Amino acid sequence: MKRVYLDHASATPVRREALEAMMPYFAEAFENPSSVYDRGFAIKAAVDEAREKVASLIHAKPKEVLFTSSGAESNNLAVKGAALANLRKGRHIIVSAIEHHSVLNAARYLERFHDFEVTFLPVTETGLVDPERLRRAITDDTVLVSIMHGNNEIGTLQSVAELSAICREKGVLFHTDAVATVGQVPVDVEALGVDLLSLSGPALGAPKGTGALFFRDRLRFVPLIHGGIQENGRRAGTENVPGIVALGKAAELAQGELEKKAAHLQTLRHALVEGVLGAVPRVHHTGHPEQRLPGHASFCFEGVEGEALIFLLAQNGVYASTGSACASKALKTSPVLIAIGMDAAVAQGSVVFTLGPDNTLDEATYTVDVLTKVVDRLRSFSPVWRKKTAA
Amino acid sequence: MKRVYLDHASATPVRREALEAMMPYFAEAFENPSSVYDRGFAIKAAVDEAREKVASLIHAKPKEVLFTSSGAESNNLAVKGAALANLRKGRHIIVSAIEHHSVLNAARYLERFHDFEVTFLPVTETGLVDPERLRRAITDDTVLVSIMHGNNEIGTLQSVAELSAICREKGVLFHTDAVATVGQVPVDVEALGVDLLSLSGPALGAPKGTGALFFRDRLRFVPLIHGGIQENGRRAGTENVPGIVALGKAAELAQGELEKKAAHLQTLRHALVEGVLGAVPRVHHTGHPEQRLPGHASFCFEGVEGEALIFLLAQNGVYASTGSACASKALKTSPVLIAIGMDAAVAQGSVVFTLGPDNTLDEATYTVDVLTKVVDRLRSFSPVWRKKTAA
Repeated sequence: MKRVYLDHASATPVRREALEAMMPYFAEAFENPSSVYDRGFAIKAAVDEAREKVASLIHAKPKEVLFTSSGAESNNLAVKGAALANLRKGRHIIVSAIEHHSVLNAARYLERFHDFEVTFLPVTETGLVDPERLRRAITDDTVLVSIMHGNNEIGTLQSVAELSAICREKGVLFHTDAVATVGQVPVDVEALGVDLLSLSGPALGAPKGTGALFFRDRLRFVPLIHGGIQENGRRAGTENVPGIVALGKAAELAQGELEKKAAHLQTLRHALVEGVLGAVPRVHHTGHPEQRLPGHASFCFEGVEGEALIFLLAQNGVYASTGSACASKALKTSPVLIAIGMDAAVAQGSVVFTLGPDNTLDEATYTVDVLTKVVDRLRSFSPVWRKKTAA
Repeated sequence: MKRVYLDHASATPVRREALEAMMPYFAEAFENPSSVYDRGFAIKAAVDEAREKVASLIHAKPKEVLFTSSGAESNNLAVKGAALANLRKGRHIIVSAIEHHSVLNAARYLERFHDFEVTFLPVTETGLVDPERLRRAITDDTVLVSIMHGNNEIGTLQSVAELSAICREKGVLFHTDAVATVGQVPVDVEALGVDLLSLSGPALGAPKGTGALFFRDRLRFVPLIHGGIQENGRRAGTENVPGIVALGKAAELAQGELEKKAAHLQTLRHALVEGVLGAVPRVHHTGHPEQRLPGHASFCFEGVEGEALIFLLAQNGVYASTGSACASKALKTSPVLIAIGMDAAVAQGSVVFTLGPDNTLDEATYTVDVLTKVVDRLRSFSPVWRKKTAA
């Protein structure tokens, strides 16, 4: 059976070059980078080289990049760490209503354990934060604003530079979760004007268990993992050297391919979106129509249960997601879809396709065909749908 | 040149079988274990199998094991998480003075950000916590006691079962950092009577970036990394599947080899310790003489700077450590050595040898020879030493 993998945001195979780069660091060059002898120094040098490559991809300085175990850890470290380092300034943070769970729940942690007030900024129907609304939300107590760069469920790219400029003007730190964007679109921390930025390794074709946090030079934040002197005391625990080396390699490759890859993904996405909208009635293309991740196509199908759809798609060799993998099993209705004003019943029929560089136009066409049949079939089982269409 | 690696506590090469086990999970079986289709279920099954193996090694139930990115993360999660989940009970925790930095600094974090009082329990000259002292330190406000199972700098094995029994009697949670012991000596969470136990993957021959936390069934603790539903909501972020699979394999191997390995390491250690004490004057064997990690030999050489000694040893192909790798670059005097009453000047000459299963008796003999020469040489440069020995 044909196999079309369109769930790259949930998981991406590790790139051959990244895997090859990391291999020597498991059993040969295995020493601890903190050790004080020659063989340890060589490992430290490999970590530093990877740091330079990740920094280069996002136009940061190497000393502004810290390695973590995931995008979720980076988000937690940024939000909690920056908030706790600035308690004297105030206890108010602002996040958008469509942030990833790792940002939302880090904010709720501050609320519960540190008496923070959290403002959850609403978004427009296309998933954008209104800059004027952000400006009005900022108070003298605001220490941090966290608004994601690209949304994983609806694909919308936020106008981060515009939002961060407001924060800079007001002297408020700005963090962006760029897990969905780094490696997909150009990400330049200077152009974006951010103080903190989270990225994930797997999104770039590095292995699971890798991530990084950009923090503006000399920015103070409280560590999440306290302990030894790794990462200049900002994150304890022996560095995941093979993973870090792989992340460096993946970042280097991503930088060279960014433009070509984005163009390819965009072509496929157009084919997929046009195909679906043309073939399937009563379907909503969610998120922003243009200002979105190049390889991200998201829909809500009326009269269909997303999980059932994913199941039947997989039976036909097409792999997609109902939303974020982190949330897929936890929640019936996506808060992101509710935040963009989607009807709760319609939000049940959410499906997200995230394309990768190896996908083809044929696969997009095949997906439209399978989707059309599968949606039809599911709807034919649904009394609600029959009633609705009869009316 | 001969190469004798005696720094296994700092880093251990990944075992061939563990590496082989993880390889398919990078680029082939790469899907997200949280995804809701067949190929994701297979990944989830691999994670569950690894969980069973780690649980089996420590005699826990699989649902009592949570995967982390390091022993340091496990320690942070245990100490902060259990403390924050029990704020209503009180704000006092007890740790030993010789805990790993990740426990000590997690405790200090609670002190600074959550108004906790921390009692740092002194230890005897051999590094043992006095049970009666622990009993007296517990108050109505005590929510957690954290005392490590095996010390990484002086090798002492704590009488954890005796200490935990006191805590259970008083209704206080007990955590032990078992990073240095799991895979070296039998670790049975039931026999130890602990509520939380941290372990590290690399110590077992799994790759860096892996670790686990045992938590007694239904024990409540606040996550360190908030976000999605991974690990039943206890630790967000996509699971490091290859690393977890490797950790499972390494745990399985460790369980089968434990007894034989410990006997071998003990033989080598005796040879090394007897050799050093016989050949080098003015040397202190630190920690407990018998109740200690089988493969751990630690010394303080008078009139010698530990780092210089490590450097010269490495020049002769012998790799050792001045103490914990995490601290080696950060601190001039080890708090552990001060806690066991070592003179600060003598504590400068600290060297730790941690043996592995591939080390041989020949290597132990070679190490004694090299050490004797190198210590002699360093002392000959030292005016302090010359003055001291002349007196």
